Amino acid sequence: MSVVAGPKDKKIIAILTDFGLKDPYVGVIKAIMLGINPNVVLVDFSHEVESQNIKEAAFLLRCYYKDFPKDSIFLAVVDPGVGSKRRAILVRTRDYFFVGPDNGIFSFLFLEEPHYTCYSLENKHFFKEAISSTFHARDIFAPVCAYLSCGIKPEDFGPKIEDPIILKGISPNKKDNCVEGEVLHIDKFGNLITNIHPKVCEEFLKRSHLTIYIKDQEVPFVTTYSDVKPGELLSLWGSSKFLEISVNQGSATDRLNVRLGEKVRVIFKS
Amino acid sequence: MSVVAGPKDKKIIAILTDFGLKDPYVGVIKAIMLGINPNVVLVDFSHEVESQNIKEAAFLLRCYYKDFPKDSIFLAVVDPGVGSKRRAILVRTRDYFFVGPDNGIFSFLFLEEPHYTCYSLENKHFFKEAISSTFHARDIFAPVCAYLSCGIKPEDFGPKIEDPIILKGISPNKKDNCVEGEVLHIDKFGNLITNIHPKVCEEFLKRSHLTIYIKDQEVPFVTTYSDVKPGELLSLWGSSKFLEISVNQGSATDRLNVRLGEKVRVIFKS
Amino acid sequence: MSVVAGPKDKKIIAILTDFGLKDPYVGVIKAIMLGINPNVVLVDFSHEVESQNIKEAAFLLRCYYKDFPKDSIFLAVVDPGVGSKRRAILVRTRDYFFVGPDNGIFSFLFLEEPHYTCYSLENKHFFKEAISSTFHARDIFAPVCAYLSCGIKPEDFGPKIEDPIILKGISPNKKDNCVEGEVLHIDKFGNLITNIHPKVCEEFLKRSHLTIYIKDQEVPFVTTYSDVKPGELLSLWGSSKFLEISVNQGSATDRLNVRLGEKVRVIFKS
Repeated sequence: MSVVAGPKDKKIIAILTDFGLKDPYVGVIKAIMLGINPNVVLVDFSHEVESQNIKEAAFLLRCYYKDFPKDSIFLAVVDPGVGSKRRAILVRTRDYFFVGPDNGIFSFLFLEEPHYTCYSLENKHFFKEAISSTFHARDIFAPVCAYLSCGIKPEDFGPKIEDPIILKGISPNKKDNCVEGEVLHIDKFGNLITNIHPKVCEEFLKRSHLTIYIKDQEVPFVTTYSDVKPGELLSLWGSSKFLEISVNQGSATDRLNVRLGEKVRVIFKS
Repeated sequence: MSVVAGPKDKKIIAILTDFGLKDPYVGVIKAIMLGINPNVVLVDFSHEVESQNIKEAAFLLRCYYKDFPKDSIFLAVVDPGVGSKRRAILVRTRDYFFVGPDNGIFSFLFLEEPHYTCYSLENKHFFKEAISSTFHARDIFAPVCAYLSCGIKPEDFGPKIEDPIILKGISPNKKDNCVEGEVLHIDKFGNLITNIHPKVCEEFLKRSHLTIYIKDQEVPFVTTYSDVKPGELLSLWGSSKFLEISVNQGSATDRLNVRLGEKVRVIFKS
Repeated sequence: MSVVAGPKDKKIIAILTDFGLKDPYVGVIKAIMLGINPNVVLVDFSHEVESQNIKEAAFLLRCYYKDFPKDSIFLAVVDPGVGSKRRAILVRTRDYFFVGPDNGIFSFLFLEEPHYTCYSLENKHFFKEAISSTFHARDIFAPVCAYLSCGIKPEDFGPKIEDPIILKGISPNKKDNCVEGEVLHIDKFGNLITNIHPKVCEEFLKRSHLTIYIKDQEVPFVTTYSDVKPGELLSLWGSSKFLEISVNQGSATDRLNVRLGEKVRVIFKS
């Protein structure tokens, strides 16, 4: 199984927001999309990104977008600047489409997919008639995704742009025999997921062993949870491929008292 | 985009409950509906209404039902009286159907749509065979919605009634140059959403400025979040049209320490 | 309405996990399944099982699986042993399919459905190409469910096995005139749901009255919530048929300060 092509009449729109599930916001953007394309298939990517944490959303999108069928559309909205003059954009990569505010939410994607085309959403024909100043997910992004799923071409939504916003400092630092990254997501099980990808470590991995440190504590690097006893700390390449720090049958965030942003170091020794 | 007609074979059922997402209750009512009409499209409106808070559910339904395609069916169940003799009802408006307990959950809807027809659900042919005393969402409301989505006529479910329950005191008070409403919903971002609609203020708005007060504090009235600095209080007509009190990139509920029911006053000065 | 047959091209896959809704995990397994069978209908059974609580998941599955249409497929993953040598299995009962780890998650199901066939998932042709050591829901269970929904036969996934793991001590104890069970799930409303089913009490019910005790406190046994005043304790056969302890319009877990595992006794007196 690699990237699978979806059928033409059943396009997937995956929705990633910080809206939570307490309010009707997610239901409402689904209603808008189904009103335009009743055949679209809607998948919740996640709605529990920390409020207004663009970096976390950008990272989660990067971790798992490739698990979606070819031609899937991603609606990604963490949008503290809604109602201001920030642009709304559409990004086309070889296999996927991405729609959201131009605030850095596609930063990790751009690193992973250097060959993308980016459009500024300006054609109001594809927006809701009355546009609120606080809910562009409903009024702009959702209708654009729905029309895109109906076959409207990316270039019909607005002009190409070359300068989408890219967050700075999101990649790990490489120095001598050390890669320093940070915890960018903590999952429900208390696993700490970092921005350290095996690719960054590639040149070292061929000729050296690695040791993982968080909060000055060394963490065993293993292949699967059960390689250590229940209750013990471990690290591994997680399901998103990125380096993860975990406790077998327990919570690493509780054990280490760690928050988003905590530094993690990989030291290579030959 | 105004109200869009859904295709005949892909009716939407939007589900609003206080069931939460912890338990299998929502999944089970979806299973029941899909067993009757496998082509129905199910949308979660919200399941995180405060337990047994009929007024909050009634308000949320009012805020966003018009964003759904024409002919959508709303299953609305916040039902502290389940198993007692409270009636089960179906409400038909020009564009939509609503199904739920007769306990006031459609009160705001009735204010907004004075031309409705209301039926008492009595035809057991459209209920689950064995009816529990605690889960009518599964045993009565879900099957009725599903049969409705299959084209069964409203009048086939039971007799017309003229006296559905309407909650009292849900509209703002108007006195001289003041409209006094209350906070009826607090969203995930800490925005305080009130029952004050621009329509109530219409006569004043033509000839005067408005000033917003909550907890004796004046709150600037603006057009969008970014009209004030990050961290500052503001108020505006929100995405549901109702008056909302917010903090730009922050939480108004944290700032003001406000709960549901807090009074909000709009004072008009010429 | 008894078990309803679903249409052949719209198979339901119901998903039960302890993944929560904070992370993209549930969205990702849906993406995988839709990539294989775009016509499948996905229903969230629950994702808020207590982390790694196999017994709770097994119980919830038992409580509500019969509300799903005939031929529904259940993907049930609470999997503390992921990546270890625990088997992956497929269970066929008369009306349904179940897929998940072989760790006891189908224990209550086996008690209820003694005529089942069980297969060990070994045919890698139906797995994701690259299998992670931490996310078999995505890499093994989801693709298997999706292929099953496409019509692949159970025996094509691997050999029959006769010894799936069954948890011990999950049924109530019967002694003289007493049935002792325990609280296996606490729902959003604070209702305490026990493993005591009317069937266990059958022989007694014909000739005696029952009295319910929890924490040495007698709890009235009634038919519906409103049989006691708001705020009062009660017990009844709940919507899952199992014995439930509740407070009318309140929370039994708050009232009694009870956790999962608390003992509940039914005493029969003639």
